Amino acid sequence: MDIPALQARLRRFSAERGWEPYQTPKNLAMAMVVEAGELVEIFQWMTPEESTRVAERPEVQQHLGEEIADVLVYLVQIADRCGVDLAAAVDRKIGLNARKYPPEFTPDSSAG
Amino acid sequence: MDIPALQARLRRFSAERGWEPYQTPKNLAMAMVVEAGELVEIFQWMTPEESTRVAERPEVQQHLGEEIADVLVYLVQIADRCGVDLAAAVDRKIGLNARKYPPEFTPDSSAG
Amino acid sequence: MDIPALQARLRRFSAERGWEPYQTPKNLAMAMVVEAGELVEIFQWMTPEESTRVAERPEVQQHLGEEIADVLVYLVQIADRCGVDLAAAVDRKIGLNARKYPPEFTPDSSAG
Amino acid sequence: MDIPALQARLRRFSAERGWEPYQTPKNLAMAMVVEAGELVEIFQWMTPEESTRVAERPEVQQHLGEEIADVLVYLVQIADRCGVDLAAAVDRKIGLNARKYPPEFTPDSSAG
Repeated sequence: MDIPALQARLRRFSAERGWEPYQTPKNLAMAMVVEAGELVEIFQWMTPEESTRVAERPEVQQHLGEEIADVLVYLVQIADRCGVDLAAAVDRKIGLNARKYPPEFTPDSSAG
Repeated sequence: MDIPALQARLRRFSAERGWEPYQTPKNLAMAMVVEAGELVEIFQWMTPEESTRVAERPEVQQHLGEEIADVLVYLVQIADRCGVDLAAAVDRKIGLNARKYPPEFTPDSSAG
Repeated sequence: MDIPALQARLRRFSAERGWEPYQTPKNLAMAMVVEAGELVEIFQWMTPEESTRVAERPEVQQHLGEEIADVLVYLVQIADRCGVDLAAAVDRKIGLNARKYPPEFTPDSSAG
Repeated sequence: MDIPALQARLRRFSAERGWEPYQTPKNLAMAMVVEAGELVEIFQWMTPEESTRVAERPEVQQHLGEEIADVLVYLVQIADRCGVDLAAAVDRKIGLNARKYPPEFTPDSSAG
């Protein structure tokens, strides 16, 4: 996924609709959490096991894809408006997590 | 951003820590909305104007980058577990939005 | 508001519909945050000033009342299922907040 | 729980700290969903069964009580700022739900 191209496309999309004044980072964060709630709604009454079988239910899977896309589109716009380099932020965060949670197991830990 | 590579990396990360049994789509959706809330927290008491100037405050910008990354990492894992093609879903959703909200303005709408 | 009576009423409501197996605290927490997102949606594109004038727009006010009620109903059920005394918890939390954030001003601070 | 008394107490609490200008309904809604996320965090990695046994873990139960209180306090303030009668809204919403989801079972449905 070409994030800068996606951000440029979304910027154009907003400009063509006169939405820029509304799309402050504050408002985009609100819109993002609204969509996050809609994603959670898909899973709210499922058992954990049912949630692992969404790929077998095409209509649920498609709905999920739409909600994931909605959250992602707002995330990408927040990053764009606030000058956050998304790929670098993800890389950095995974590194921080790796230090915070050292691995218990490694694929070859039994290889001795 | 190479999403399949990121998903493979995150799968390995979870495997090395024995986290897979906990990372059902249901639980990942909960974790995602928790992080979405932490992202909203950054902006909750800001005016809309202040929220547009986050790029001028490096420590806020870095915090924001971490929260965006946290949400994104969970989104990417939900898509992976549920067989959602993230790039295709985003593309499809922007197309749906374009039809739902036809443009009012175009860059050259005044060109006659 | 008589919380124990409301909790009894909601327990009966769930029993009459066979919903108890689904209403684990985990699922109720998910449902609660979904409704919280719907409440946020009402305000997402409003300016802060517009949000202070919701009382002048009866249909928005009524919609808001419904979303507040949805969140509250789930909160009250979570408290019920988990043995949390809601009134005591609120009282305790306001006390903690009062210590965490000592008052800067008091109504009679200028009275000398 | 005496909601109008709680609202008066919270209004005084805000006034004494000079917080009113920040506590627009928009900002309170954001703060509410942030706390809703913190409540969800308690349950995110629990199995549904574990979530039903929170009452057996006093420290988790107390933490939960704090998060429930945080969400409730913001809900009550949003209702206050927007002129929503909380008790009436809850009553009305339960009535709407009762019509939307007619009971399948009643306590004496087997009494025939």
